[in-house]
Amino acid sequence: MKVANQSFRTIWPDPRCKFVHVIDQTQLPFAFKTLYIHSTEQMAHAIKSMQVRGAPLIGAAAAYGMALAMLENESDDYLKQAAQMLKNSRPTAVNLAWAVNRMLAILNDTPLNRRNFTAWREAAKIAEEDVAQNQLIGQHGFDLIKSCYQDKTFNILTHCNAGWLATVDYGTALSPIYAAHDAGLNVHVWVDETRPRNQGAALTAWELGQHGVPHTVITDNAGGHLMQQGLVDMVIVGADRVTTNGDVCNKIGTYLKALAAFDNQIPFYAAVPSPTIDWALADYKQIEIEQRDSDEVSYIQGLSADGSLQSVRLTPVESTAANPAFDLTPARLVTGIITEKGVLLPVELVNLTLKKG
Amino acid sequence: MKVANQSFRTIWPDPRCKFVHVIDQTQLPFAFKTLYIHSTEQMAHAIKSMQVRGAPLIGAAAAYGMALAMLENESDDYLKQAAQMLKNSRPTAVNLAWAVNRMLAILNDTPLNRRNFTAWREAAKIAEEDVAQNQLIGQHGFDLIKSCYQDKTFNILTHCNAGWLATVDYGTALSPIYAAHDAGLNVHVWVDETRPRNQGAALTAWELGQHGVPHTVITDNAGGHLMQQGLVDMVIVGADRVTTNGDVCNKIGTYLKALAAFDNQIPFYAAVPSPTIDWALADYKQIEIEQRDSDEVSYIQGLSADGSLQSVRLTPVESTAANPAFDLTPARLVTGIITEKGVLLPVELVNLTLKKG
Repeated sequence: MKVANQSFRTIWPDPRCKFVHVIDQTQLPFAFKTLYIHSTEQMAHAIKSMQVRGAPLIGAAAAYGMALAMLENESDDYLKQAAQMLKNSRPTAVNLAWAVNRMLAILNDTPLNRRNFTAWREAAKIAEEDVAQNQLIGQHGFDLIKSCYQDKTFNILTHCNAGWLATVDYGTALSPIYAAHDAGLNVHVWVDETRPRNQGAALTAWELGQHGVPHTVITDNAGGHLMQQGLVDMVIVGADRVTTNGDVCNKIGTYLKALAAFDNQIPFYAAVPSPTIDWALADYKQIEIEQRDSDEVSYIQGLSADGSLQSVRLTPVESTAANPAFDLTPARLVTGIITEKGVLLPVELVNLTLKKG
Repeated sequence: MKVANQSFRTIWPDPRCKFVHVIDQTQLPFAFKTLYIHSTEQMAHAIKSMQVRGAPLIGAAAAYGMALAMLENESDDYLKQAAQMLKNSRPTAVNLAWAVNRMLAILNDTPLNRRNFTAWREAAKIAEEDVAQNQLIGQHGFDLIKSCYQDKTFNILTHCNAGWLATVDYGTALSPIYAAHDAGLNVHVWVDETRPRNQGAALTAWELGQHGVPHTVITDNAGGHLMQQGLVDMVIVGADRVTTNGDVCNKIGTYLKALAAFDNQIPFYAAVPSPTIDWALADYKQIEIEQRDSDEVSYIQGLSADGSLQSVRLTPVESTAANPAFDLTPARLVTGIITEKGVLLPVELVNLTLKKG
């Protein structure tokens, strides 16, 4: 998508396949900086420090991390070592392990002297597949928007960042919005700031702004009121995992927006590539919710008057904080799941699973 | 209530009735400072700059502001001038106008040479009435908590600050919690940080901590998840206005917590002194919602590493923000209204109104 009128992806290889470029997302929204990644170690660090983040993007980054390893040393030992280093960088991310395992499988079947070539080709394939899936999600979501569109501003509320910054390009939840905007529809996005890490206020607002999509940042508290006032036509969020019952595990606070959408008869969609659907899991109660560092609640980072990034404390020093990172939206509140294969009703996921079984 | 083991109110007169002490709430939670208020002008400034805030407290502060005027000049002209200055300090606060009008009525009926004495006596009466009402709210709410209490930690979720800092003493939503804690019940409070102004993270957490009540700060996004997990036994919030249908107008985000409480069959109460019930208003759709400065969303204040209070920017400079300050929780989601006269079901408010009419 566009940054200051120039097209960008979040990650791209140098044409000579000697290093990789990434956007440093820890500097957004206040500075746009790209980094050169020259080694597996540097890529592992970029993932760990969240310079690259978002499940699909982390998968592609890890794949390129494996390609960088093959530049250094094509041996079996080094292959294993690089895979471990990348997997350890964020052990809970599903896409990361999936991408590393896919790279391992193909490289183990490749003679040493062709591993470097194969690795860069396979990493590019993983990145292209992500782009293609997200583009299809965009098309299917765009069809949904078109079917509700009435020649006035169409207001979509989103939570967290499921935009192109979280993927290689296009995004998941934001992909239909970019498609609608680019097709000339008059869309406007309510951007939940998404405490505690503020991915909405920092990343979603920035990427929508760079691409020219009209948007307004709101506190996480405001969405219900806007829905009551008739100012929200559709909710689209991403998801970290979807069960076969159609339950949606996503960033903390998603459940509250789904309740409000349901109470005000507003359609609520989760947009996900099909690998995010966990075919082995029916009951959302089996999903363990990650508890993150309480300092993410007690402190916040922003731009100070002198132009530097500063962290300030928000809570009394004596007060503790709790920080559950995700919540679960039961399928009964979900209108549909937008995937690259089309828009599925939650109940259709169950049927697909029965067929698979 | 207690600050570092010493009992405090938010406002109290000098024993010689020459000036007034208030707690400077803009410095909390990082510094506890009291201010001397010597004139009506200083009081108007304290209200305007939110050094004193909270509807009941603003009422008492305005009453003392009128008493300070009578120290300076007991004339009719000056009485009117002082009343106007105080009313202008925060024109939308209902309690402020109510308190100033009550002072005006009694002082207009008082000979000049007794106005100073009468004014200080009436201001003290207004403050004492607030304390007595809140203490009764505490008792009625405590009875509710006792009726659900089961000899294990009783978890109460609250939104914003409806504690003693918002009143002269005891608070409204927090008054039952202090009563339960002081009676030896094992209560724990989930404190919504309450973006954008963070009254929960800054004020509620601080006052609970000073009084020794166990509590944990959470983002506004987290409450629904905690309810799903069975970690919330009751929700108690304050309110800015309650309609005769039992609809509750309160800080933005309250509606989302009421939806989640309802979805998880958790009792949801609003605690309010009866003057907060608007006997003239049945339909919540008639309440106009204040839109506050968008900078409250785009910037946040906290303690920087060097110990000073700093404001930092959270959103891209190009992004706009919207800031509705209140939302409306329909009566169907409200279990009851805790008042100084007892706990009323929303439908009982309608019956009381019919009797009144």
